[in-house]
Amino acid sequence: MKTGKFIVIEGLEGAGKSSTHQVVVNTLKEFGIHEVVFTREPGGTPLAEKLRYLIKHEAEELVTAKAELLMLYAARVQLVENVIKPALARGKWVVGDRHDLSSQAYQGGGRGLDRHLMTTLKNAVLGDFKPDFTLYLDIEPEIGLARAKGRGELDRIEQQNLDFFHRTRARYLQLVQQDPNAVLINAGQPIELVQQDIRKAVQKFIEENV
Amino acid sequence: MKTGKFIVIEGLEGAGKSSTHQVVVNTLKEFGIHEVVFTREPGGTPLAEKLRYLIKHEAEELVTAKAELLMLYAARVQLVENVIKPALARGKWVVGDRHDLSSQAYQGGGRGLDRHLMTTLKNAVLGDFKPDFTLYLDIEPEIGLARAKGRGELDRIEQQNLDFFHRTRARYLQLVQQDPNAVLINAGQPIELVQQDIRKAVQKFIEENV
Repeated sequence: MKTGKFIVIEGLEGAGKSSTHQVVVNTLKEFGIHEVVFTREPGGTPLAEKLRYLIKHEAEELVTAKAELLMLYAARVQLVENVIKPALARGKWVVGDRHDLSSQAYQGGGRGLDRHLMTTLKNAVLGDFKPDFTLYLDIEPEIGLARAKGRGELDRIEQQNLDFFHRTRARYLQLVQQDPNAVLINAGQPIELVQQDIRKAVQKFIEENV
Repeated sequence: MKTGKFIVIEGLEGAGKSSTHQVVVNTLKEFGIHEVVFTREPGGTPLAEKLRYLIKHEAEELVTAKAELLMLYAARVQLVENVIKPALARGKWVVGDRHDLSSQAYQGGGRGLDRHLMTTLKNAVLGDFKPDFTLYLDIEPEIGLARAKGRGELDRIEQQNLDFFHRTRARYLQLVQQDPNAVLINAGQPIELVQQDIRKAVQKFIEENV
C-alpha cells in the first residue's frame, strides 16, 4: 500500500484556509486520491476539541502564554497519536487546517515566547514527526482580520492587537523560508489566482513525491 | 514584610494528604502564621480546575501520557503564575496538596515517560520556581489504595494497576532522597505518630528558615 502524506494549510485568520482545503481535496482527486482525512488544530479528537474550547474561550482568568502553548501541545499530541499517525499508517492522506507551524508563529512570534522553549517543547512532544508539505497562505494582517471579522465574533486569540498578528506573520515568513517542504501562496491575490497557485503547488508536490 | 513560604504535601492516594494539611496549618498557627493559602494540583484556578476534570475524567478517547503531562503543566503554570507567586509576593504562606513532584513520580515513574522530557519540560515551564519545603507521605501502595477505595469511585489515574503505583512510589523515594528540602514521613504508622512527625518536621523547617 502506498503511504499517505500529511499536507498542512497554514496562515493568519482570513487568509482563506477553508476554501484552500477544498482546492487541495479536488487536486488530490485528480491524482486518484479520494479518501482524505481532514483535521483541524487545535482539535480533531474528543479531548483535543475540549482543549480547543478552553484555549479559545477561557474568560474566567488570564491565560498565561505558557499554559496556552502547553494546551495546544496536549491537543496536538492527541491528534497526532490517535488520528494522524494511524491514518497515515493505513495509507490515507491527511489534510490539516493548522499544525505545529501555527504554534511557532502565534505563540513563538505573536506572544514572543522564548525560542528555546518553543524548540524544546516541539522536539520533546513531536520528535521527528512533521508535515510532508505545508501550504502557507500569506496575507497582510489588516486584510485577513477584516475578512475574519466579517464572519462574526472573534475568539480570545483573534482579539489580539494588530502588532500581535504582524509578529505572527513575520515568524511565519521566516520559518516558511527555511522549510524546504513549505510553499508560500500569495493569498492577497484575486481568489481565482490563489486557487490556481494552490492547485499548481499541490500538483508539483504529488508529482515529485508520490 | 516577611516573605511567605511554599510548603507542599506529596504522596500516593490514601497516604493521608488531606489530614496532613490540617496538621500543617495548626503548626503554622503555633508560630503566629494565621493566613495560609491552600492549593491543590491539578487545579486551584478556574482554568486549572477545568483541566483537572479533563485529566481525571476524559473517557471518550485514550489519553496519551504526553498529553496528560502537558495538561498537568498547563494547569500548574496557571496556578503558579496566577495564585502561588502572587500570594508569596504578598508575604502569604502557601500549602499545596501536590505540586511538580507528583508529575515526576506519577508521569515520570508510573507512566515511564522519558527522564529527559520530564526535566526539560519542568525547567522550560517552571524555571527555578520550586517548593521551599516538601512533606512526602510514604505508604505501601496496597495500603494507600485500599484506603482510597474506601472513599468511593476511583478516577482515571487511580484506576492504574498496582505496578504503576509501585513505580510511582519508587520515583518518589528516589527524588525525595535527593532533595534537601524534602522530608519523608512514614505514613504507615498509627495516625497519631504520623501527625506528630509532621508537626515536628514543620516546626524544624520554620525554626531553621524563618
